Amino acid sequence: MGIEDAISRLKPMFRDRLSLRAADLTAHGQSETHFAETPPDAVVWPVSTDEVAALVTICNEELCPIIGWGAGTSLEGHALAVRGGIVVNFAQMAQVIEINAEDMSVRVQPGITREALNEELRATGLFFPVDPGANATVGGMAMTRASGTTAVRYGTMRDNVRALEVVLADGRVTRTGTQARKSSAGYDLTGLMVGSEGTLALVTELTLQLHGQPAAVSAAVCAFETMDAAVQAVVETIGSGVPMARIEFVDPATVAAVNTASGFSFPSQPHLLVEFHGSETAVSEEAELFKSIAEDNGATGFDWATKSEDRNRLWAMRHKAYWSILASRPGATAIVTDVCVPLSRLAEAVSATQADIADSPITGPILGHVGDGNFHAILLIDPANADERRAAKDLANRMADRALSLGGTVTGEHGVGMGKLDHMAREHGAGWDVMGQIKRAMDPNNILNPGKVVRQN
Amino acid sequence: MGIEDAISRLKPMFRDRLSLRAADLTAHGQSETHFAETPPDAVVWPVSTDEVAALVTICNEELCPIIGWGAGTSLEGHALAVRGGIVVNFAQMAQVIEINAEDMSVRVQPGITREALNEELRATGLFFPVDPGANATVGGMAMTRASGTTAVRYGTMRDNVRALEVVLADGRVTRTGTQARKSSAGYDLTGLMVGSEGTLALVTELTLQLHGQPAAVSAAVCAFETMDAAVQAVVETIGSGVPMARIEFVDPATVAAVNTASGFSFPSQPHLLVEFHGSETAVSEEAELFKSIAEDNGATGFDWATKSEDRNRLWAMRHKAYWSILASRPGATAIVTDVCVPLSRLAEAVSATQADIADSPITGPILGHVGDGNFHAILLIDPANADERRAAKDLANRMADRALSLGGTVTGEHGVGMGKLDHMAREHGAGWDVMGQIKRAMDPNNILNPGKVVRQN
Repeated sequence: MGIEDAISRLKPMFRDRLSLRAADLTAHGQSETHFAETPPDAVVWPVSTDEVAALVTICNEELCPIIGWGAGTSLEGHALAVRGGIVVNFAQMAQVIEINAEDMSVRVQPGITREALNEELRATGLFFPVDPGANATVGGMAMTRASGTTAVRYGTMRDNVRALEVVLADGRVTRTGTQARKSSAGYDLTGLMVGSEGTLALVTELTLQLHGQPAAVSAAVCAFETMDAAVQAVVETIGSGVPMARIEFVDPATVAAVNTASGFSFPSQPHLLVEFHGSETAVSEEAELFKSIAEDNGATGFDWATKSEDRNRLWAMRHKAYWSILASRPGATAIVTDVCVPLSRLAEAVSATQADIADSPITGPILGHVGDGNFHAILLIDPANADERRAAKDLANRMADRALSLGGTVTGEHGVGMGKLDHMAREHGAGWDVMGQIKRAMDPNNILNPGKVVRQN
Repeated sequence: MGIEDAISRLKPMFRDRLSLRAADLTAHGQSETHFAETPPDAVVWPVSTDEVAALVTICNEELCPIIGWGAGTSLEGHALAVRGGIVVNFAQMAQVIEINAEDMSVRVQPGITREALNEELRATGLFFPVDPGANATVGGMAMTRASGTTAVRYGTMRDNVRALEVVLADGRVTRTGTQARKSSAGYDLTGLMVGSEGTLALVTELTLQLHGQPAAVSAAVCAFETMDAAVQAVVETIGSGVPMARIEFVDPATVAAVNTASGFSFPSQPHLLVEFHGSETAVSEEAELFKSIAEDNGATGFDWATKSEDRNRLWAMRHKAYWSILASRPGATAIVTDVCVPLSRLAEAVSATQADIADSPITGPILGHVGDGNFHAILLIDPANADERRAAKDLANRMADRALSLGGTVTGEHGVGMGKLDHMAREHGAGWDVMGQIKRAMDPNNILNPGKVVRQN
């Protein structure tokens, strides 16, 4: 019994789709941020639900950890094999199974990326809106309850996963939810799976909610004197009922990094980037309303774009922000924070964070999905410098504590993984024990992504 | 140990807020539909979370069942004390705790009704949109994952409960979710609680998502030649991205009942009733688009209303439907079905249901929230007539089987209670076992609303 025995039993089944090669193990032992390399014992590429079920059955019998892998773009070390075991790479389960245009839904395998999915949907007039930035797989996005720039309008993965097919820890296959738009038939297992980070089941199929491609899209960027004024404009806009498609904040440090990296010349001020989706009439009405709210809060330098290429130019600032910030300090790695607070406390949270960062030896530009109250500080550190790492961790911990004291959460969209485990008891109290009870009930042998989400024994 | 001992220990704590009077027990042993009267052993009216926690602690020690009670308007016998025990009536925990206009949220106690809540919100420009028809409590609505006429636009209770305070089965109090708009911090316990019908915890506080009162509202009713044409108009309207606030279907039998009860003279045809919420411009644009889609599908007899009193007149048909149908057969009781199917299968499901009803000895007008694919047949039976009861049950079972075969659910919004237990294994497969695992993990003594939702031992 054990990992070696599991691998021996799986080899004849997966043949060249099971790898023990160092290069594969290394590639699946890395994350996009600051965690140490943690190679698994093997990598498997299944092609069907039956194969996943067989794999899980064997690993459960052999007590071998199983870690799902999508595109490897998660930021909290979710897919690292911290107790060894087998990484299950879903790259060969990446098909669109069925598009249901009338139902505005699509059934897909977990390994398809959001960009590939939208490419397949292009001709249907529908699209899948959740956009976390990275070209993640929809399976991975479901498991971290991802969201991103469009959540203010279209919701998060919680809102856009209608149903799942999953393989339970004992290898049984079941469906959660239905193809209907709603149900009251017992506990919401789909909702329980979304955000469970592969600790309760492996997802082998998703039914996703689609949305109509908007007839018109308009985008704008504008600058504010202060961060408070920008946030006030956000609060008033959301409160006015304007269905913003995106409403993003970047601070002066982010603007500076993007200007340097891409030759832009945005003024060194807080900016909002916004986007409107709808009919021609609605979009133009909403854009006018936003402009008037923003100007009442001192916004200047409005730059509008309705044509696709102009919008792409405007949004380049936001989309390039993370890489521009990384590039601003060659050799640096990032600790990316992810707090989310009530809108009413957002200005306070961002201001206090900026003051903390200014008082520290760390550079940390801030940007965020402010319509949701979610913002990130990109804390740049020299990975070899223990003092900087400690200072960044201190900053991140202070942000997390502040978010909790303001009624918010330590992670708006990145998930728990390894990076947020230490905050879970404080965020959830007895609720974290409940999560542990659920985990033990559903995965008594603790084979599904052990070391993540719940209290570790 | 047992129910009597629990009551003895609770009496000194609750005094005159614990009742053993026959009238109180009878009043809390009834449901709005066809279930037999099932009085509990006692009724308690707590006034605080601390009292609920003390009550649950004692009942857990004494193995005494606890059943939450809101307004008693559920339709599947959710609140019946089928194993005896204590009904917890939340009528004295019905306060608005805090309105957060900037965050568009409100913290309330569970016993407040949705109408009382909206009365308190009137001056804020915000409202709570979920409307299941009955003036239910928000606690009860959360526990059944209620929805109703506005879900097509504003979502169900799943979408509108942001956070909870709950008392767990061992008496511990915990919070689920936060005051922020989103979170990725572990399992979605809020979502797990919503729809759990009081079997996992008792809710003592809810944070609800609010929405802006629309600047303009417009409503219309129109008639179609066939049900297929009406459904086709719904599918096309939803597909076009028009954010309908309500889109309701009534069949000719429902129209006839309302005409008789209220002196209306709507033609004996399938009708759609719709409502639009938004800015003046948006509402008028959307209404025009709907009219053109409806007319392309043969709609006639458009009656529009933008003024509040005219809208109320139009919507009287829908709001009076259930009682008009009941009144059409004096002395009858109703078995109300609640299937929900993918929109693409809705016409097929309704047609087959109408044919089934026509072939039976039962009268069963049909109406529904067709934007969600959810419809109800109101099966009228003489409660003393065993043949009619059997025939109605057969019809209901056929509808449930058909919904499952079409990819839908046996209950779109009413919940499982006692009435849908027999369908759960077929709807969920191994997922129902998972629900049982969760129930046993969170309530090992099975004191929280035993006999509901999960497999019964």
